[in-house]
Amino acid sequence: MWDDNRDGGLRPMDAEQLREHAHKMPGYLRGILPDSAPNHPESLEDIFNDVRAKILPGVTHWQSPNFFGYYPSNSSIAGFLGEMLSAGLNIVGFSWITSPAATELEMTVLDWLAKLLKLPDDFLSAGEGGGVIQGTASEAVLVVLLAARDRILRRVGKKALEKLVVYASDQTHSALQKACQIGGIHPENCRFLKTDSSINYALSPDVLREAIAHDVSNGLIPFFLCATVGTTSSTAVDPLLFLGKTAKSNGMWFHVDAAYAGSACICPEYRHHIDGVEEADSFNMNAHKWFLTNFDCSALWVKDRNALVQSLSTNPEFLKNKASQANMVVDYKDWQIPLGRRFRSLKLWMVLRLYGIENLQCYIRNHINLAKHFEGLVAQDPRFEVVTPRVFSLVCFHLLPSQNNEDHGNKLNHDLLDAVNSTGKIFISHTVLSGKYILRFAVGAPLTEERHITSAWKVLQEEASTLLGSL
Amino acid sequence: MWDDNRDGGLRPMDAEQLREHAHKMPGYLRGILPDSAPNHPESLEDIFNDVRAKILPGVTHWQSPNFFGYYPSNSSIAGFLGEMLSAGLNIVGFSWITSPAATELEMTVLDWLAKLLKLPDDFLSAGEGGGVIQGTASEAVLVVLLAARDRILRRVGKKALEKLVVYASDQTHSALQKACQIGGIHPENCRFLKTDSSINYALSPDVLREAIAHDVSNGLIPFFLCATVGTTSSTAVDPLLFLGKTAKSNGMWFHVDAAYAGSACICPEYRHHIDGVEEADSFNMNAHKWFLTNFDCSALWVKDRNALVQSLSTNPEFLKNKASQANMVVDYKDWQIPLGRRFRSLKLWMVLRLYGIENLQCYIRNHINLAKHFEGLVAQDPRFEVVTPRVFSLVCFHLLPSQNNEDHGNKLNHDLLDAVNSTGKIFISHTVLSGKYILRFAVGAPLTEERHITSAWKVLQEEASTLLGSL
Repeated sequence: MWDDNRDGGLRPMDAEQLREHAHKMPGYLRGILPDSAPNHPESLEDIFNDVRAKILPGVTHWQSPNFFGYYPSNSSIAGFLGEMLSAGLNIVGFSWITSPAATELEMTVLDWLAKLLKLPDDFLSAGEGGGVIQGTASEAVLVVLLAARDRILRRVGKKALEKLVVYASDQTHSALQKACQIGGIHPENCRFLKTDSSINYALSPDVLREAIAHDVSNGLIPFFLCATVGTTSSTAVDPLLFLGKTAKSNGMWFHVDAAYAGSACICPEYRHHIDGVEEADSFNMNAHKWFLTNFDCSALWVKDRNALVQSLSTNPEFLKNKASQANMVVDYKDWQIPLGRRFRSLKLWMVLRLYGIENLQCYIRNHINLAKHFEGLVAQDPRFEVVTPRVFSLVCFHLLPSQNNEDHGNKLNHDLLDAVNSTGKIFISHTVLSGKYILRFAVGAPLTEERHITSAWKVLQEEASTLLGSL
Repeated sequence: MWDDNRDGGLRPMDAEQLREHAHKMPGYLRGILPDSAPNHPESLEDIFNDVRAKILPGVTHWQSPNFFGYYPSNSSIAGFLGEMLSAGLNIVGFSWITSPAATELEMTVLDWLAKLLKLPDDFLSAGEGGGVIQGTASEAVLVVLLAARDRILRRVGKKALEKLVVYASDQTHSALQKACQIGGIHPENCRFLKTDSSINYALSPDVLREAIAHDVSNGLIPFFLCATVGTTSSTAVDPLLFLGKTAKSNGMWFHVDAAYAGSACICPEYRHHIDGVEEADSFNMNAHKWFLTNFDCSALWVKDRNALVQSLSTNPEFLKNKASQANMVVDYKDWQIPLGRRFRSLKLWMVLRLYGIENLQCYIRNHINLAKHFEGLVAQDPRFEVVTPRVFSLVCFHLLPSQNNEDHGNKLNHDLLDAVNSTGKIFISHTVLSGKYILRFAVGAPLTEERHITSAWKVLQEEASTLLGSL
């Protein structure tokens, strides 16, 4: 029996099989790394061998041309060089004095990007506003929520915290909910207003106005509206102009989250999606998503930088210096949650210069064309359906259930996602829209070409056939 | 006259002089960079030329062996390689599924570091606790403050927010005050308790107990105590054991901030400074300060990870996955403010492996010896005074005023700081202790050797002589 096993029979504890598959299971690394740090130095070769053998097998490859999950996380030569330069200098640029170049390059490059997006001049650093690099869109929405909260509380008194109301659509990123939790906004005062397929999951200005009127009549205080251009689930675009006017007429802070789709707005033909941004108090796009700048680099602009500073500044003795005391400089520590900050503008600067605007526009258009191509493929297969109109580079689709049975359809698509990702050939993710389990195919990795789209679609078709055949 | 000028006379608008000095003035970069991003690609050579000519002159060189300001921000080959690897993979590890290796390596390496610091087992990931890499100590204290806030509010009801009281010494880093602002703790409920030179600026347990008793008798609710091991001003060490017992007996969350001095506690002879950490609910040290790990990498451990998750989790549909839903994995997104996160454990892992524990201990000891050396130099010059006993690698000292006049002494030392930093040879910073302006000399840059200490002291002596001579 023992010989049989060695000759190809059952091998329930084969070491190679374990090595090959264990990384797919939670805790895979604990068993194959030592329990403590070494007393003596190890060789770089040993470490790199471990990277290859133990780390890489457990990496979800966001840079793969076959990665279509969530939203992309772009890397590039320029972004990488910027990271290297930043890591080499390793400065901590919390105040202007701690590295004038870091603060000033950030102001300059965010002005460049603002102009590229044709943001109103109010967002430029020459006036009362300006741009700042946050780590993520979550931090961006948090800092402006805090600025808005403290602005209104200075007016109505801090005991009114429990009366403050936040508005957004039910498609808004969970970062807003988290920001509210952090800032102490009462959960029952967070209005995530219902959207539906009839207006492609955008927030209706009428629904907003009604909600505000209702809250005001109940003695509550509307103070913050977050609109999204390119929601996470389905790239829905909220109508900024109408929403913004409503926010303004109610004295509310108006934030626009264009974390993903903002990048597309550097192309004249997509710029109209942020029409109305002139009504906004703050605007955010993530250069680390679809703009070739390595993670993290989330660009936030505000019209009134003083509102941020009033909410987030501290002034300890050990950080005092002439330039700051004389109010001659921007100290970005007062525009963000952490004190320390890296020299992140370098990578954005290098992306803009090494590629140039025209190439960056081509880059965006290419991905959108690839997404159109995928959309066409889905539309040709009667077993599938495109669920919402494709706007940018995300296609929302699903496999139709054999009977018109929603539960069955949801299970079917859940299983399809699982089957497709289990092949290891591509990676996609999902959402739920109007109760339906939907597959998301987000194009945007720097190396993705048409052949990857074609292959990905083949994997989806094959796994669908297998699933449908087994029913 | 025009000829005279060309031959060495007054050159008020000389381009070279402008280039040489302009970076010392706020706004220097605006004038020498274009107003907008280029349409077409620029060469890497042009960009690097600009880095050399325009960026580097405006960089405050934190990696210089002559940088003695604030606290150090260590870079190293291992840290740099880790950054490169992380930038190359460019994953976004918010959930386990988005890169299992990123989550699991972080858990493992923070266990290693916890063991190296001899933290109690409760902080290890095998139980209810565990470690997580935050960006900065500011974020570390913020997330635990929020966890503590929400834990107590779940018990007493959220309307009690205005009754919550935070305690710390007046030497505590401003990050705590900022965390309170963010979390909506009323400023009048933040007790920054007075310290003085008689106990080297440590927080007195008696003063704490008295403050708590007073607040309780006024119907307020003590809920959070932050102690510091190695304060920013003067490396004061709060008595953790006594403070922790008081916190525990009052049902408060006890956080220990060892952002700077934590690194020293890997040496057995300094470990006693965190005796009492077993009473803590959370403990923080910054590997990016004095532990050769490139910024940012702030290690936070908690005993009850569930408290963090209850405060910071969101569960949007588009992030749901089998592993998370089955509660089989750690999703670090719920332990931090942002959603996205970089693969920062790689650099800490590489530092620990490439250098090994013994070398890291030598590294710390060497800096402490260099600081002792500097302390000795100061003590030998009767014009100067060491102000607080040196504990780690920071020396607090000042130039004695000719008369015993405090205002004069403060101006004198302010001017000395200015003069010394204006030489461009070294960089130091300052603080104020008991109303006195104090110079801080923080040893800890990776390249600093005894000769840099000797030279720095010479600069200080020379500038002092000039200043005293001109009086």
